[in-house]
Amino acid sequence: MISPEILRRYPWFAGLSEQVLKAIALISEEKETKQGEVLFEEGDPAKCLILVVEGEVDLTFEGEDSERYVVDTVIAGQPFCWSSLVEPYQETSTAVVRSPGKLVCINGSQLRDLCDADFEVGYLLMLQVAKVLRQRLLGARLQLIASAVGPA
Amino acid sequence: MISPEILRRYPWFAGLSEQVLKAIALISEEKETKQGEVLFEEGDPAKCLILVVEGEVDLTFEGEDSERYVVDTVIAGQPFCWSSLVEPYQETSTAVVRSPGKLVCINGSQLRDLCDADFEVGYLLMLQVAKVLRQRLLGARLQLIASAVGPA
Repeated sequence: MISPEILRRYPWFAGLSEQVLKAIALISEEKETKQGEVLFEEGDPAKCLILVVEGEVDLTFEGEDSERYVVDTVIAGQPFCWSSLVEPYQETSTAVVRSPGKLVCINGSQLRDLCDADFEVGYLLMLQVAKVLRQRLLGARLQLIASAVGPA
Repeated sequence: MISPEILRRYPWFAGLSEQVLKAIALISEEKETKQGEVLFEEGDPAKCLILVVEGEVDLTFEGEDSERYVVDTVIAGQPFCWSSLVEPYQETSTAVVRSPGKLVCINGSQLRDLCDADFEVGYLLMLQVAKVLRQRLLGARLQLIASAVGPA
């Protein structure tokens, strides 16, 4: 578990009660990362919603040419691995640590249990997930326009 | 308003009670479409969540070269304009009718009011929105890989 204080710093959790933040802190763990570490691969079961506390993480995926493309870089203060909250709970990219730091990993299955038990929590979190997805989608479209994507 | 029967056919609304379906039907309208009709443009306020009942709609956006690119084609049974439920409620693409048919337009602001009044409705709908966004994101990434996107 982690301190609920860590979660309170993230706009993601705005609107959640103290009690809910404590419940989320109970199912969360801190993790130190090393440069180049592969956190998960495309197609893996999406086990955790992850917040970047320090450092940066590249979201990449493999092209038909077997090259690895960076589709997004997640910086401190941002979440990733929203796939842990959206069926079929499967990673859509491979996450590679770009610069070392610290993550908070929230158990996805237990977080979904919290959402199912308290729909206000579920609604607030899914609104945040949708905002992240919106940003990722706009980013992907900008890359499409610019055709500026290059091998990682 | 429309008949709640129309909504019941969509997997999107699975899990919602009869009462909620009736409330959504009350804030919905049917609309006939014509080929080539522009339903909304990128940057417009996103006013409605839209279900395609018949026909097809291209989601397009303008590249830096002023060409118009198709990023997705929405077919019968699918929803679009999820932006009406996600801040800042602004269209991220321009929707052009590819083949004429019929749409159901659900008032976005009133639908958000329903979500705020009943978090279970909000949670269920936002889970569906996230699934649509997931599909759009995977589609955009596939286009990125293939660099197969061409002018509309």
